[in-house]
Amino acid sequence: MSNSYVLVINSGSSSLKFAVINSATGEAVLSGLGECFGLEDSRMSWKFNGDKREVAIQGDESHHKLAINTLVGLTEELALAQDIVAVGHRIVHGGEKFTQTVRIDEAVTQEIEQLADLAPLHNPAGAIGIRAALEAFPSLPQFAVFDTAFHQTMPKKAFTGAICNTLYSDYGIRRYGFHGTSHYYVSREAAHMLNKSIDDASFISVHLGNGASVCAIEKGRSVDTSMGFTPLSGLMMGTRCGDLDPGIIEFLLKKGWSQERVFDALNKKSGFLGVSGVTSDARGILEAMENGHEGAKLAFEVFTYRVAKYISSYLVPLTSLDAIIFTGGIGENSLPIRREILNNLKLLGFVEDEQGNEAARFGNAGVIARSEMLDAVAMVIPTNEEYVIVQQSMVLLNQ
Amino acid sequence: MSNSYVLVINSGSSSLKFAVINSATGEAVLSGLGECFGLEDSRMSWKFNGDKREVAIQGDESHHKLAINTLVGLTEELALAQDIVAVGHRIVHGGEKFTQTVRIDEAVTQEIEQLADLAPLHNPAGAIGIRAALEAFPSLPQFAVFDTAFHQTMPKKAFTGAICNTLYSDYGIRRYGFHGTSHYYVSREAAHMLNKSIDDASFISVHLGNGASVCAIEKGRSVDTSMGFTPLSGLMMGTRCGDLDPGIIEFLLKKGWSQERVFDALNKKSGFLGVSGVTSDARGILEAMENGHEGAKLAFEVFTYRVAKYISSYLVPLTSLDAIIFTGGIGENSLPIRREILNNLKLLGFVEDEQGNEAARFGNAGVIARSEMLDAVAMVIPTNEEYVIVQQSMVLLNQ
Repeated sequence: MSNSYVLVINSGSSSLKFAVINSATGEAVLSGLGECFGLEDSRMSWKFNGDKREVAIQGDESHHKLAINTLVGLTEELALAQDIVAVGHRIVHGGEKFTQTVRIDEAVTQEIEQLADLAPLHNPAGAIGIRAALEAFPSLPQFAVFDTAFHQTMPKKAFTGAICNTLYSDYGIRRYGFHGTSHYYVSREAAHMLNKSIDDASFISVHLGNGASVCAIEKGRSVDTSMGFTPLSGLMMGTRCGDLDPGIIEFLLKKGWSQERVFDALNKKSGFLGVSGVTSDARGILEAMENGHEGAKLAFEVFTYRVAKYISSYLVPLTSLDAIIFTGGIGENSLPIRREILNNLKLLGFVEDEQGNEAARFGNAGVIARSEMLDAVAMVIPTNEEYVIVQQSMVLLNQ
Repeated sequence: MSNSYVLVINSGSSSLKFAVINSATGEAVLSGLGECFGLEDSRMSWKFNGDKREVAIQGDESHHKLAINTLVGLTEELALAQDIVAVGHRIVHGGEKFTQTVRIDEAVTQEIEQLADLAPLHNPAGAIGIRAALEAFPSLPQFAVFDTAFHQTMPKKAFTGAICNTLYSDYGIRRYGFHGTSHYYVSREAAHMLNKSIDDASFISVHLGNGASVCAIEKGRSVDTSMGFTPLSGLMMGTRCGDLDPGIIEFLLKKGWSQERVFDALNKKSGFLGVSGVTSDARGILEAMENGHEGAKLAFEVFTYRVAKYISSYLVPLTSLDAIIFTGGIGENSLPIRREILNNLKLLGFVEDEQGNEAARFGNAGVIARSEMLDAVAMVIPTNEEYVIVQQSMVLLNQ
């Protein structure tokens, strides 16, 4: 029997990430990145069988298109092309229109383009990737998997802003949430590890990476999440501020700051970077802390304290709790950050399993704490967003 | 023995609220309000021994000054003047300078004026009231009681914004918190009712009025609170949005909304009013709900859900919990709102005491729910911010 591969494409405004993934095993047989599109040093690099290669992307056509054309040649050269059965696209925003993964046709592509208002950087780039891939792989079925889709089950009280209702009816301003494929994946994996049916399990999923969000999951469905109308809200992140007193923005604008300067500061100079004054990277924060850097220590304390408060608040939407799940680059690997978050959850009865916490790193899943009071555990599950794209594409393909 | 009265003054930008309060009993023997200052119908009204009176405020001098001069004549006419031993001023912002109530001198008045940057409407008005009262009552000691002072015990991880640290060093942007006198008062009353020393008790105080805030209180000290740099943040309120995805502001500005329109919407057209589309008043929301109004029902659900999430998140800064305290106009009186908040706290073990909840209204304190899991209660304590001003003024007067 031949392999079934899915080509996964994540098209950004000046980049294109891709992987060819074995749908049975989840293994990425080929993975790569096109970057600096539109610039002089536009290039594409990939990894295949442990070998790394890089080529320049040059030409008058769109670099997205050139990159995907390079990809077509590459899959033929590497004898993968004949086993690729589908293309799965990661799309950031599905608005209220897309509540699950869909097969792509012209109407779907146009819908994605029309949602550009809600994701002005990401959705147009995603649509460019789709159009280029439709042209390059005309015979392959293609699918769109949305970061927002998993959260479309949130009840109205969770997704409604405490603002004028005409902002929702006129502009679609509401909580959408992101990181949906990650929260979806780790909740299914956690249910499996705990020998529970997903339909009978409740989780608080904590995705901590450069972007970060928390999601309350009741019987497999998202019922609340910390990111809102945009990915700027919710938790403190690498360079993003998360939820904010809107009066701070008013104050800075009145001080004569331009709008550009204010939102650049909140998007790119806040979070770990802003509080520490050192770095946006959690590992850098921990290193600086060890060297006695006060700003880094404060950034560590503010971050962990805020994550813990969000976790505790998500007991409200749930009727029971089976596990707190840590995932994402920081959640999967940072022992000190997980430890401090758990320390902050003492009043909920969580006691760290120190050995478990030390073992669950670098790709290993495991239980890291227990709360007798809530009859719940805390655990680590490495996320795999690409595999969700593969699985959901295969399900639709086989329907 | 003669009475000791304290004159309490709350000076706003176009109003002046006042009361003459018996320091031993807390009884307001005279209370009144000057309003519409600077306008044609500027006036002052008061209540004394059940009688209500009103006079016009007219003249070329500042209406604050004219009102206070009227007050001087009034206290003499009512034979109260000889028993007034102090004047206590409610001042909104004490910044990081004022961590407790202080006796007013010229330096203090200037400090309050200099904090105008942080409270541009309130502090200048407070200083105008102080200067007028110093002139009108030159022989009386005067004291300033700050809304922010109680929260100055917050640890750095709770008051630090997840933003660039230079915003704190350059502009003083951090969490200050407000409603301090209310949270202070009800926590002391709750400890008394529970027969506990305040130094050994932990509370989550929930002040729900037209403005609303939650405060975590550990051993009598504020360790976190939901209002931040400005009173716009934290909970959803009558017309204010509370914490917000800052990306919403960026979106509206990019849609061509002026800064004035955006912040007017967030301050005056959000909260109960914005979500319901009907009214900013909680009683009006409940009435409209009973008549089947969908917007009012949604406003009720969003408000109670968000309050419950804030309460649950404040288990993080505490090491134990004795009671959740409801206070403020809504917290003291609204049975359905308290009931729905408690329903949202089921996973923390709270079970409503229905009789208790029905009894604790219209000025009556009492226990309204219990959590066996947390060994805690929920209770109602009517607040009395003016009495805190009286008490703290008397303590300093007698030192």
